Amino acid sequence: MDIKSFVLKKAREAKEGARSVAKASSGLKNSALIKMADTIKKKTGELQRENRKDLVAAKKKGLSKAMINRLTLTAKSIDEMAQGLVEIAALPDPVGEITKMWQRPNGMMVGKMRVPIGVIGIIYESRPNVTADATALCLKAGNAVILRGGSEAINSNRAIVKILRGVAAKEGIHEGVITFIDNTDRQAIMEMLKLEGLIDVVIPRGGEGLIRAVTENSRIPVLKHYKGVCHVFVDRDADLQMAEDICFNAKVQRPGTCNAMETMLVDEKIVKKFLPPMIKRFKKAKVLIKGCPGTRKLDKSLAAAADEDFYKEYVDLILNVKVVNDIDGAMDHIAKYSSAHTDSIVTKDYQKAMRFLREVDSSSVFVNASTRLSDGFQFGLGAEMGISTDKIHARGPMGLEELTCMKFIVLGNGQIRT
Amino acid sequence: MDIKSFVLKKAREAKEGARSVAKASSGLKNSALIKMADTIKKKTGELQRENRKDLVAAKKKGLSKAMINRLTLTAKSIDEMAQGLVEIAALPDPVGEITKMWQRPNGMMVGKMRVPIGVIGIIYESRPNVTADATALCLKAGNAVILRGGSEAINSNRAIVKILRGVAAKEGIHEGVITFIDNTDRQAIMEMLKLEGLIDVVIPRGGEGLIRAVTENSRIPVLKHYKGVCHVFVDRDADLQMAEDICFNAKVQRPGTCNAMETMLVDEKIVKKFLPPMIKRFKKAKVLIKGCPGTRKLDKSLAAAADEDFYKEYVDLILNVKVVNDIDGAMDHIAKYSSAHTDSIVTKDYQKAMRFLREVDSSSVFVNASTRLSDGFQFGLGAEMGISTDKIHARGPMGLEELTCMKFIVLGNGQIRT
Repeated sequence: MDIKSFVLKKAREAKEGARSVAKASSGLKNSALIKMADTIKKKTGELQRENRKDLVAAKKKGLSKAMINRLTLTAKSIDEMAQGLVEIAALPDPVGEITKMWQRPNGMMVGKMRVPIGVIGIIYESRPNVTADATALCLKAGNAVILRGGSEAINSNRAIVKILRGVAAKEGIHEGVITFIDNTDRQAIMEMLKLEGLIDVVIPRGGEGLIRAVTENSRIPVLKHYKGVCHVFVDRDADLQMAEDICFNAKVQRPGTCNAMETMLVDEKIVKKFLPPMIKRFKKAKVLIKGCPGTRKLDKSLAAAADEDFYKEYVDLILNVKVVNDIDGAMDHIAKYSSAHTDSIVTKDYQKAMRFLREVDSSSVFVNASTRLSDGFQFGLGAEMGISTDKIHARGPMGLEELTCMKFIVLGNGQIRT
Repeated sequence: MDIKSFVLKKAREAKEGARSVAKASSGLKNSALIKMADTIKKKTGELQRENRKDLVAAKKKGLSKAMINRLTLTAKSIDEMAQGLVEIAALPDPVGEITKMWQRPNGMMVGKMRVPIGVIGIIYESRPNVTADATALCLKAGNAVILRGGSEAINSNRAIVKILRGVAAKEGIHEGVITFIDNTDRQAIMEMLKLEGLIDVVIPRGGEGLIRAVTENSRIPVLKHYKGVCHVFVDRDADLQMAEDICFNAKVQRPGTCNAMETMLVDEKIVKKFLPPMIKRFKKAKVLIKGCPGTRKLDKSLAAAADEDFYKEYVDLILNVKVVNDIDGAMDHIAKYSSAHTDSIVTKDYQKAMRFLREVDSSSVFVNASTRLSDGFQFGLGAEMGISTDKIHARGPMGLEELTCMKFIVLGNGQIRT
């Protein structure tokens, strides 16, 4: 069978799965998830055996140590994968919620009901745990998933999918609910992206290159996560100790994440008081600081930040520091350079806090908190499918609700249009 | 300037406009809309003069009478256009609403705030009133609009835009809030569709060809309205008089609309009782009926429905009639042939009503009401930007809320990640 027909057949199977799981009760979905977790734990040995094939191939190909780490299934990471499914089973089922309902003059009731999206395509790289995570989130929200993982993890992914499908079938959910594109040719992705009407939305999870390629080629809506160029603005009316703690945490606690601060903006009125101890603390933590002219006036040992640096997602212990006139200068800078992921203000001033909240056009806008808290679990969503930097459908951390959509329902008693 | 640079410049202007209008108060937006309406009415003569140029060109090109009708600005249609702006001014402003807010264990408050999307691209054909309608809806929801109308209406559109921009500027809103791509070359659309990061969403309003072309070429999310192949299922437990009235209304009241019924599904248990009077009434109203074998057994004079007929949006006095076993047969048919626009069940049975509501995967699902009521105004949304047959972001009639998105806000008092 050619790739095109193969992918089409798979997508039709996923559509069947979607119809089946959309009707499944919460009880059935939860018990399937818990049995999937049990089976994964029981088959740890088998999963590791399959994973080893991928690891051997990865070493042969000379993949980086970081890549190989992400690829490795240890007994601990398999246990965590299983635990993730149990946690998703414990979350409330978003399907069926009626968020509002109102009566019209002709007596009909109009409402909005939360329903599954249908078939969700996940295109991802290396990490095999995504196979279980993404499946569980989609299934809990009543969707089928059509998975296309990277070639590096093909054996691990295949083994995980086999377990998940086996449990689904035993529980009476159509196997298509977990559909795996067992073909690592890039053309398989391109064929998926044409299947408007069979696949309802695509979520690419991986590097910027993958996301751009998917977006440029897809006829299907894409929910995407580009980079996180996050800012903290320290206002003249900030509690300076709080500001220092927030900025330090935002940069240093885990610099390799998308919600770490990349640029610190400082109100010119407090530069002399705030910056010297802050810079000292950053230097002690081995943060490389790139300063604007105003910052370097204060500390000539600092490197100079070039304009293009302000667009960079370092995901490393590197930080831009820029002095701004006031909150307007800070918001102008953010409007120009931010990736609209997460931006925070530190201030004691109520008016400025409210202006920043309203006017900064980012998916998460914070007052007096570290950008590192921008995360589905920290927000209390209970799960996270990724962080959307899109504005359409989902913005910011995506939980189960973002894997559903709202349809209109009408309860009438014979109404017609006149 | 080449088309690419021209469109880029325009999109940058729209982005400026978006920042300006996002901050505008409801009072300012409403007073701008009301002044726009006043100015449109005052300049009726000027608008008709410009419109006449388009009409002359249209006749020369030999456009159809229906196209020329849609293109014509009469004193009455100009007055209605103005009235539309006044009505949009009177609607509640969706921006700034906090739909929920909750506290986390570390004391930070997390909430979701409704904010404008940013820059909305509208690509439309012929009808110049879309210029004013779409602008007003976008502006009220705090967005800038970037308009690309059809070449047939270029003079009319240009004149309307000039009025709207003039009022915006006078009111202190950046003119970019209404940006008009004054270039009818098709390449201008293609360039727009590449401007990810400047244009946030595109809404094509026109025929299926236009919508497909936009979807296939866009890197920007598209909100689209494909066809409406709507069903009414008459269950064995229906009130047959109600069913007859609903079906008649759904087909005949205005057959040229997307929410008109195209296929009537009838439970086999009531065929003999329900169909003969129903068919008689349809025939009297000059509806051409295409029947399935079961229907034609009852009335041999009927044309036969071919399988492909069930996919058709007739938008005419033509109707498919199909006999089904029961509600499952009806829902199977709908799952296969429906365009997921609007589908209705007529029944007195509570269980079946609830099953149909939950299981039918269409943007609007009705019980005991005519599909013709599927409309933003009938639903009480106060306005309508179109009806989305997508599942992502907006589904069904789109009002002001669908022209906004939700961002996360966090109110902290020094929280950091540990």
